[in-house]
Parts: sequence; structure tokens; C-alpha cells
Amino acid sequence: MTPGTLHCIGMGPGDPELLTLKAVRLLATSPVIAFFAKRGRPGHARRIAGAHMNPAAEQLRFEYPFTTELPVDDPSYEPGMRAFYEAAAAALAARLAAGSDVALLCEGDPFFYGSAMHLFDRLAEFPSEITPGITGMSGCWAQARMPMTHGDDILTVLPGTLDQASLAARLAASDASVIMKVGRNLGKIRAALGASGLTDRALYVERGTMAGTRMVKLADMADERAPYFSLVLVAGRQRPR
Amino acid sequence: MTPGTLHCIGMGPGDPELLTLKAVRLLATSPVIAFFAKRGRPGHARRIAGAHMNPAAEQLRFEYPFTTELPVDDPSYEPGMRAFYEAAAAALAARLAAGSDVALLCEGDPFFYGSAMHLFDRLAEFPSEITPGITGMSGCWAQARMPMTHGDDILTVLPGTLDQASLAARLAASDASVIMKVGRNLGKIRAALGASGLTDRALYVERGTMAGTRMVKLADMADERAPYFSLVLVAGRQRPR
Repeated sequence: MTPGTLHCIGMGPGDPELLTLKAVRLLATSPVIAFFAKRGRPGHARRIAGAHMNPAAEQLRFEYPFTTELPVDDPSYEPGMRAFYEAAAAALAARLAAGSDVALLCEGDPFFYGSAMHLFDRLAEFPSEITPGITGMSGCWAQARMPMTHGDDILTVLPGTLDQASLAARLAASDASVIMKVGRNLGKIRAALGASGLTDRALYVERGTMAGTRMVKLADMADERAPYFSLVLVAGRQRPR
Repeated sequence: MTPGTLHCIGMGPGDPELLTLKAVRLLATSPVIAFFAKRGRPGHARRIAGAHMNPAAEQLRFEYPFTTELPVDDPSYEPGMRAFYEAAAAALAARLAAGSDVALLCEGDPFFYGSAMHLFDRLAEFPSEITPGITGMSGCWAQARMPMTHGDDILTVLPGTLDQASLAARLAASDASVIMKVGRNLGKIRAALGASGLTDRALYVERGTMAGTRMVKLADMADERAPYFSLVLVAGRQRPR
């Protein structure tokens, strides 16, 4: 039996029109379509796929055992997530071993901070192909019409989970920055931007390219924490010719 | 007269199947389609657009006065490029002022190291919309099937034009790195990776997602310089759960 191919497919940042032609082709032809979803939700990647999915496909919905309701440093977090990814990988391995191709839907770009990598690594014995996607950050700076990096700019992508001093030092040393994982780190991010003199250049974007997008200068925003789909952009300083 | 809208459209890294549905829609309906091209070449973005372009569209081809044949620090480089962008912006402004929408084709993502920003900034008086595109780096790490950033990784995007000591320091301080503008900086980049102990983790990718892609571990590659479409990837170190 020739094994199937694992397709990790980037679904882009949220606007379904930002799907690639390749993603659409694979969605329309895949016999098995798998996706992650938050408990009780339809799944963000699944929503983007919408009517492009092969109606005859087997759908595999992998529901996270928890997301933000359990802190990452809780002792049950790591084993819980590991068991979740093991079970999901086993479900895909059974289809691949039986010769069926599998489409694994990934928000944004599969290999840029994506959950799909946890399955990709576990399924290394099978053929695979990665379809890149528009990242959340590209979707946000495009919607904000904010030129991000020019010429010889350095861009740094930072998790908001860094401690405040590290965040401030990294921000000060970069031309352009993107801060991910804003959530409950918003207050710390605000302080780090202030310490590095960048508050006036920071744009907060929530639900970029989706319904209900909110874009506001961080200096004009008083919220204490941010939802999951949010990031902070600091554009580069080089001026164009 | 209501002015037209300037559409800066990301064309992705090279594979035409990595165009977004939105890019395809705009290509098919735009009355004016503009693109940059290297002297004597058809234009990379134009080639990606292929048969998706409105056949009745006016095509504006902006030919760079020079690319790599003149060093960036040559005294005639800056004025030459500035005059080139001024003339291109004036050509688009005439169409926009006459009420015509304009599609400006951009390799990769328009606001991520793109020439389009030089026109966007000059045409700020007109309505505009940015369609993000798959970046060259996403196309390369997808094709290499190389998971790039996990969890709390820091990603740094570095121009190869930095001096060797700065490059080495930045590489050592980042989890994952992308080095752009490899070209004649290849020897310096190799030395900086060596100094930061990262040679064995560095992948060189040339013409990613295009015909004639070349992917090789930098440690196994002896070339003294690289062509325009090339970059170096260092994947993050965090292991998945």
C-alpha cells in the first residue's frame, strides 16, 4: 500500500479571499480534511475553508483540551497537550497508512507558530507537502496600510511572553517589530514599548482581516488585556527613496 | 471625478498557484496593471500573473534603471532610483486622477521589503488597498518542509548587508533567523554563521517555489556569491510538544 501524503495547508489570517489557489485546489480534492478547534467552537481554520471543502471529505475535528483557561506553566498543561497531539497524529497516521491523502488546515502559515508542526513532526515517516499561507502579521499590516520593512530594515518577531526588560531591549535594537501573544501580556508590552521610546509608533490590531477588526494606536488604547487574535506592529523607520 | 484606487497586490514568491483568490480577482478586473521589471527581462511579478490578467488592461512596465550592476553606495544610485520612482508614481497618478483603478503587482508581500512602498508613499493622496502575499521566506521554508518557529521562539529577519560582527551577534541572540539580500554578502554571512555556531543549522534556498529551486545545507555549499532570489534560513530550536 502506497501511503498517502500529509498536506499542511496555510489558510491565511481570516479573510477567505486570502486563500491561495493551491489551498483551494487541495481543499476541493482531499478525501480527509482535519482541523483544530477551540472547545465548543466551529474552528477558525474550518470557517475560512467554508464552501471550498470537498463535500464528500471525511472531516476530523481535533478539539483542544484547553486553550487560555489553563496557564501554560500549570503542571497538567504539557501532558494534556502532548496526549492531545498524540491522539490527533494517530488518527491521521491511520488514514495515511491506508493510502489516503490528508489535508490538515492551519491558520496563517503552517510553519510560522502553527499547531500543525506538532503533528508534522510526529508523522515524519509519511510523505508530506506544505502549502504556505498569508501570515497574520502580513494580513494586519496590509489592512492597516502600514509599510512595514524597507531596504535594510531588521524585523524582529517577538512573543509577548518575554519578560519586560528583554522585550524592551529587543524592541530598541530592531527597526521593525511584531509582537505576538499579546493576550494577558498587554500591560507588560505597553511598558516595554514605553521604555524603548516606541509607544507612538505602535499599532494594536485585533481580528485583522476578519469581521470586527479593530485597529488603534496603542497610545490611545487603555485595555488591560487582549483577545487571542491580536498583535502589535511597529513599522520600520527607513524612509523610501 | 472620483479618483481610482491604488491596489498594491502581493503576487507571492514565484509559484503562480500561491496567488490568493483576491489577487486573482483584482488581476482579472483591473483596467490598469503596472509592474516593475529588470532591464531586458519580462518582469517576475508579471510572469506570476500570467493568464490571470485582464486581457483588455493597459499594461505599464516600469524598468529599473539598474539593479545589481551599480553598487548601492555609488553616488548616482540614489538619484537614479528616486527619478525612476518619481516617474512611475506620476504615471500611476495620472490614471488614478482620471478615475481608473490601478493594480500594482508586487513580488512576495507588498509591504515586506517591496518596491511598491516607494510608489505607495508617493501616492498617499489617492485611496488605496493592500492585498498581502505569501512572502519569499514562507515559500522557502514550506518547500524545504522546515518548521520555522515554535511556541515562544523569536524570529529575526536580517539583511545580509549588515557587517559581519553585527550579523553574528544578531544570529546568536535569535531562536530562528532569515537572512535576506544574500548576493555578494554570502561569504560574510557564512563567516557570521560560523562565528555564532549556527553553520550546521543553516539552509540555503535559491529560487524557492520557482523552476530550478536549489536547496542545500550552507555547510555543503562552496559558492562565493548567490543570485537575487536566494536566502538563508535558520530554524528555531524549540521542540514541539
